[in-house]
Amino acid sequence: MRHAATTLCLLGLSIPAFCQRGPAPYYEDTKNVPASPEIHPDHSVTFRLFAPKASEVVLMGSPGILEFLKEPKPLHKDDKGVWSLTVGPLPAGSYTYGYAIDGGLRMPDPSNPNLELRRWGPTSMFIVPAAQKAVFEERQVPHGTLHIGTYDSKNLGMSRMFYVYTPPGYEASQQKYPVLYLLHGNGQIEASWTWTGRANVILDNLLADGKIKPMVVVMPYGHIPREIKPDPTAPADPMAIEKELLGGVRPEVERKYRVLTDREHRAIGGLSMGAAQSLSIGLHNLDQFAYIAAFSGGGNRTEWEKADPAVLNKKLKVLWIGCGTEDPGYKGVKGMADLLAEKKIRHTYNESGGGHSWPNWQVYLSKYAPLLFRD
Amino acid sequence: MRHAATTLCLLGLSIPAFCQRGPAPYYEDTKNVPASPEIHPDHSVTFRLFAPKASEVVLMGSPGILEFLKEPKPLHKDDKGVWSLTVGPLPAGSYTYGYAIDGGLRMPDPSNPNLELRRWGPTSMFIVPAAQKAVFEERQVPHGTLHIGTYDSKNLGMSRMFYVYTPPGYEASQQKYPVLYLLHGNGQIEASWTWTGRANVILDNLLADGKIKPMVVVMPYGHIPREIKPDPTAPADPMAIEKELLGGVRPEVERKYRVLTDREHRAIGGLSMGAAQSLSIGLHNLDQFAYIAAFSGGGNRTEWEKADPAVLNKKLKVLWIGCGTEDPGYKGVKGMADLLAEKKIRHTYNESGGGHSWPNWQVYLSKYAPLLFRD
Repeated sequence: MRHAATTLCLLGLSIPAFCQRGPAPYYEDTKNVPASPEIHPDHSVTFRLFAPKASEVVLMGSPGILEFLKEPKPLHKDDKGVWSLTVGPLPAGSYTYGYAIDGGLRMPDPSNPNLELRRWGPTSMFIVPAAQKAVFEERQVPHGTLHIGTYDSKNLGMSRMFYVYTPPGYEASQQKYPVLYLLHGNGQIEASWTWTGRANVILDNLLADGKIKPMVVVMPYGHIPREIKPDPTAPADPMAIEKELLGGVRPEVERKYRVLTDREHRAIGGLSMGAAQSLSIGLHNLDQFAYIAAFSGGGNRTEWEKADPAVLNKKLKVLWIGCGTEDPGYKGVKGMADLLAEKKIRHTYNESGGGHSWPNWQVYLSKYAPLLFRD
Repeated sequence: MRHAATTLCLLGLSIPAFCQRGPAPYYEDTKNVPASPEIHPDHSVTFRLFAPKASEVVLMGSPGILEFLKEPKPLHKDDKGVWSLTVGPLPAGSYTYGYAIDGGLRMPDPSNPNLELRRWGPTSMFIVPAAQKAVFEERQVPHGTLHIGTYDSKNLGMSRMFYVYTPPGYEASQQKYPVLYLLHGNGQIEASWTWTGRANVILDNLLADGKIKPMVVVMPYGHIPREIKPDPTAPADPMAIEKELLGGVRPEVERKYRVLTDREHRAIGGLSMGAAQSLSIGLHNLDQFAYIAAFSGGGNRTEWEKADPAVLNKKLKVLWIGCGTEDPGYKGVKGMADLLAEKKIRHTYNESGGGHSWPNWQVYLSKYAPLLFRD
C-alpha cells in the first residue's frame, strides 16, 4: 500500500510540487495515516480516513458537480479506526473530493497533499491516469513556465492575481506569441486550470507532439467580490469580469509578456461560469478576439439571438462548444448549439459522455488548442 | 463577524490568490460555515468549526514547531454545534494550524481558503498584521512576478519544481541580476516561502523602500525522496540536495533567467532544515557563494570546526545567523554562533524572541536581504 503521491509518480504522473513526496507523512503519529486515495491498477479508487471516535464519515464530490459521485457516500470503519470506501473504476482525469465527519462540513483528506485551490475552503484532488498516457500526464518533454502575477486593479481598488503559461523556449526567444485567455468556473480561482486541470502539462504535451502553435495562456481570476459593489448583498455578476479582463489584466499581460496584440492572435475560452463569460466577452469584443470556446456552459441566449451571422462568420475563426451528456447544464448548452445551427453561425459542437467535470474540460482544452492561430 | 479573508483584505493584507474572496462560502449549506479564523483588532484570534456531532475538537499548531501553541488546545462547543477557541494576542506574522476531530488526524479549517502548501497533508494558515504595516503586508508598490518552473532532473530521474521571484521591471529589462537561493524547512515545499512566508511581498516592499538591490530569488524543492535511494528505508539525508541544487536547479535557472553567475552575485540562505543545508552548501562551495544565512537552524559543527577562518573571512561577505530564544533548537544555533566567535569567523548573530516560526523567518529575511550584493 503506497502513498497516493508515490503511486502517481510511479504511474508517471506529476502533481505540481508534490510528486517527489515519499511514503511517510509528517504527522507526529505516522502509523495512523493511511494511504488515501489509493488508485488501483483497474482505476478504481480507495479512500481512507483515520477517525477512531467518529460516528459517521461521508465521501463528498464537488458541490453541484457531477464527477465520480452522484451523491455523497458513507465510508465504513474497520477495527483500527480507519474508515474506507472504494469507488470506480473511473475514467482518466482530475477529480476533487472531501469528507464530512460527524455531520460537519466537507474537509480535505489529511493523507493527501494534492489540493484543488478554490475560492473557498480547501478541497482534495487526485488524478486517474489513462491506459495509454493521457494528454494531462507529465512526460519528459520540454516544459513551459507558469507565472503568478500580482497587479493593483484601478477598477476594483485591490490587488488581483493571474497565472500565465509561457511555452518552452519563451525565455531564450525574442518572438512574440499569440495568447489564449483561459477562464475558470464558479468557486475556482486563477490557479485551478493548472493545479487541478494540468493545463500547463496539456500544452507542453501538445506542443511536443506538434499539435499546437506555441502560445501564451493567461488564466485570470474570474470573480468580482460582492463587497466592492454598491449593494454588498446583491448577487455576484459573472459578467463584471469583462471590464477587469480587458481593462486590467490584458494591459498588464501586454506590458509584461511578448504577446501579439491583434485579434487574430487572441483567443478566449473557459469552463462553466468561464464558458458563459467567454461567450459574452468574445461576442461583445469581436475586434479583440477571433476565437471563442465554451466548455460545459451556455451563453446569454438573448444576445446570441440578436447577433448577425454574417458578421460572426466573417470574424470568428473558431467558435467551439463542448458539453457532456450527463452535465446538469447539458440542455442549456445543447440549446445554445442548436441556436447557432439554426442561425447558421459556423461553430463546432463537441458532445461527449460524462458530466460537469475536469476529465471533460481536460479533453476539451486538448481539442480546442490545436485549432488556434492556424494563420 | 466577517470571513477571515475579508478581514485580511480590510487590513490591507493580501494572501496570494485568495484576498478578493467575499463573505459567503461555496459549501452547499452556507449557514453552517462560521468565520474562522477571525483576527480581532487586538490581534487575538478566534478559531471556529461547525461539527455538531463531534465529541472533541482540538486546535493544533505545526508538529514540533513552537508557534502560537505550546501544546494542542481544546475548542468548546456552543448550542448550535459550533466549536470555538480564542488565543493570543499574537505577534505579527504567518501562522499555521489545523484541527483534530474526535481523536483523528490534524485537518485544515474548512472555513479558511488560505493554506500552507506542504510536503504532506494540507495545513491551514493565517496572517496577523502589525500595528504599522509589517514588511510582509502587501502595499501598492510595483510587484515582482513568481514563476513555477518544472525540470527533468537527470540526477534523480524525475521531474522537480522550483519557484523563482523576479523583481518588478525584470520583464522589460535587459539587465542581469544577482541571485539568492532561499531554502525551506523540513515538511515544507518550494511554494512555502511565498505562499506562507510571503517572501515575494517582503522583497517587493524592501525594493520599493530602497533597502535592497533588485535580485532574483530561487526557491528550490529541498527534499530528496527516499524511494530513489538504494535503501528505501534509510533516513532522509538533508544534504542530498547539494548535488541537485548545484547540478540540477542552478543550470536550469542560469539557462532561463538573466542572472549573474559569479560568486559575488550569488547568495544562499534558508530556514530550519534549509539553514543547515545553506551552511553546508555555502561552506563546501565558497567558489560559488559569497553570502550565507541560517534562520533557526545550526550547521554541521564538525566541518565548521575544521574550516579556515582566514579563508572564510576573505571569501564570505556576509555570514548571517538568526534564532529565537524560545526555539527548541536555540542551544544548537547559539552554539554554532559561539563557535564562529571563538574561531574569529566574521558573522552576524541575530538573537530574537519567539520560536521556530514564520514571524521570525519573515523578519530574518527582511534583515538578510538588505545586506546582499552591496558592491
